Amino acid sequence: MPSGKAMLPGVGVFGTGSTARVLVPLLQAEGFEVQALWGRSEEEARSLAKELGIPFHTSRSDDVLLHQDVDLVCIYIPPSMTRQIAVKALGIGKNVVCEKAATAVDSFKMVTAARYYPQLLSMMGNTLRFLPAFVAMRQRLAEGYVGDIQVCDVRVYGPSLLDQSYGWTCEELMGGGGLHTAGSAIIDLLSYLTGTRAHRVHGLLRTFVQQNNLIRGIRRVTSDDFCFFQMLMGGSGSSAVCSTVTLNFNMPGTFVHEVMVVGSAGRLVVRGTELYGQRNESKCEELLLADHSGVAPAAKEMPLPHRQGLSSMVKALRQSFQAHEERRSWSRGPVASAPTFEDGLYVQTVVEAVKQSSNSGEWVCVEIMSQEPDPNQNLCEALQRNKN
Amino acid sequence: MPSGKAMLPGVGVFGTGSTARVLVPLLQAEGFEVQALWGRSEEEARSLAKELGIPFHTSRSDDVLLHQDVDLVCIYIPPSMTRQIAVKALGIGKNVVCEKAATAVDSFKMVTAARYYPQLLSMMGNTLRFLPAFVAMRQRLAEGYVGDIQVCDVRVYGPSLLDQSYGWTCEELMGGGGLHTAGSAIIDLLSYLTGTRAHRVHGLLRTFVQQNNLIRGIRRVTSDDFCFFQMLMGGSGSSAVCSTVTLNFNMPGTFVHEVMVVGSAGRLVVRGTELYGQRNESKCEELLLADHSGVAPAAKEMPLPHRQGLSSMVKALRQSFQAHEERRSWSRGPVASAPTFEDGLYVQTVVEAVKQSSNSGEWVCVEIMSQEPDPNQNLCEALQRNKN
Repeated sequence: MPSGKAMLPGVGVFGTGSTARVLVPLLQAEGFEVQALWGRSEEEARSLAKELGIPFHTSRSDDVLLHQDVDLVCIYIPPSMTRQIAVKALGIGKNVVCEKAATAVDSFKMVTAARYYPQLLSMMGNTLRFLPAFVAMRQRLAEGYVGDIQVCDVRVYGPSLLDQSYGWTCEELMGGGGLHTAGSAIIDLLSYLTGTRAHRVHGLLRTFVQQNNLIRGIRRVTSDDFCFFQMLMGGSGSSAVCSTVTLNFNMPGTFVHEVMVVGSAGRLVVRGTELYGQRNESKCEELLLADHSGVAPAAKEMPLPHRQGLSSMVKALRQSFQAHEERRSWSRGPVASAPTFEDGLYVQTVVEAVKQSSNSGEWVCVEIMSQEPDPNQNLCEALQRNKN
Repeated sequence: MPSGKAMLPGVGVFGTGSTARVLVPLLQAEGFEVQALWGRSEEEARSLAKELGIPFHTSRSDDVLLHQDVDLVCIYIPPSMTRQIAVKALGIGKNVVCEKAATAVDSFKMVTAARYYPQLLSMMGNTLRFLPAFVAMRQRLAEGYVGDIQVCDVRVYGPSLLDQSYGWTCEELMGGGGLHTAGSAIIDLLSYLTGTRAHRVHGLLRTFVQQNNLIRGIRRVTSDDFCFFQMLMGGSGSSAVCSTVTLNFNMPGTFVHEVMVVGSAGRLVVRGTELYGQRNESKCEELLLADHSGVAPAAKEMPLPHRQGLSSMVKALRQSFQAHEERRSWSRGPVASAPTFEDGLYVQTVVEAVKQSSNSGEWVCVEIMSQEPDPNQNLCEALQRNKN
């Protein structure tokens, strides 16, 4: 049970979307005081703050970042805006939990900031790692339940990810699309489960629905609603793990979230929020972890695995901060498995490699950025070419 | 009910493997007289002929082909031997149902023979087209149940395909492996369901289990036990149907056979032998075709969809021959949807393109052979090179 409420940090939340709407009550239930809410418009912020009982709201980011009662900043806003807020928050000395950025360059800037302030908490809000079913799956994998891992096979099917109105979710370059939204959580999850990273990827993206009742005229959706990619992870040659991921968001009325790991001695599969397993010598599958959380599937806007993962993440945050007297101090233990900003950069790099592969049709090597690209490089190259 | 037994052709069966063992009783139940059985060894042939009540057995192929009571030849033998028997049977004037060949060149030779004898029945024994669930699925697709087809998503998981002892199933070049064995039935099925063909493919094959208790020492399995491929079918650019197929035969104790077609207005899925569907506006899936056949899952060696498909194929054959007085005559109607040898060539071409893609890592165009490659071509090229 939450205890020592006074020791928990005050929280500032960025965002008024579906995640923020789910997150705030979870934070409050664990004993965090949500002190401030930022929204893109004053009106959005006011309305949600009132609904969720948050004392302060604003549309100016500094008002949250500089708020004296805010020690932890949770950033759940469109990807293209994430980097700016996250880097600034760390610079002001606030702990940060945030969603993915829009590009690898942005992710790299976040990594640089996180490295600069190692005493501050900085973690990605990919929530699947905290889901009990995946924690148990990872434990079983480490214990050798499936033997040597051969194949990871993931399917995520659901209704359209597009917002009601035209916005970033429609734009590939703004971080919209199935690959960026759902795929990145899977890319992160598979590296967490297998303890390896992708070194080569191949993929195919499609936008089957380019216009609908709400998005029409000269506007077109550019973000993917179908994506299909493979990753060769760890090892090399035939010892690499083959991961295959199918994301399909043209299936209204369905939600399938299935992560299977097949190995030499058996397999494990998480369907939704439950873990099943079968060893090779066994005739049938066993339920290894049931979901007794009893969370109503009311949160229509957020799939159950993500919602439950978010809930577990908030619990881990509470444990992390609770261990210390001082409001801003936290202990690493309870959040040790959380994705770091370095993991965020890796995920973003894989996402971009998959997109590149979809364009070129070729396998693409995953090369993590080790220094920021010179913004003048293209210009320099152009000048260089002209000289010759 | 079978009627007019006297009008049905006598059947000669090639093969003593699991398919032949299932096929013969199905033929007999429909009123066909199985007159002759060929096995690779005299002993295998004798033993199975006795078990199944077949009056004549041999290990010499001509003895079956020239048998005067044999009007229909069913060929279920290792792929590398198929072409020779099939072409010869047509040349002798027998109707032919046969399994796939080992190479595109062999398939092309079979096409040539089939074109030469259009009055003879020549069909591939890929049996999934006849499965009632797929017949119904195709019908629903044609009626527009799913709208415009976007994605086909197929998964086949099962135990190892290797024989108990070292043999063709272990050898990629002999037509072994998941792609050749199970993948070809899926490639054929998807072209049947969508009415289109693959024009570009990409794939990845793996042999995770290269040795086991029975295959060891200097012997190694070269055929794939995991295969994963994508096909762009029909249309071009964004109007192409994206098909993704995952075959995994490292899953003892499991049998998953799932074929899903997703379109703009809904989706259809055949799980095992039953058809389900869901339209976009609907909240849940409906069962569109249940399986009331009540076939016991006794035939462990043959997955249920293939077994049921084989059974439906034999029924169609009976109807086709029953329509005529003369034993060798058949009518096209009941077998109109059967895969032709041309379809067999297409399937084999796709299989080889997927293998090529797995080797090169690139997308490969599917180019159907239109004339037999000159066997001396390599030699000629070598001579040519030496001259220059």
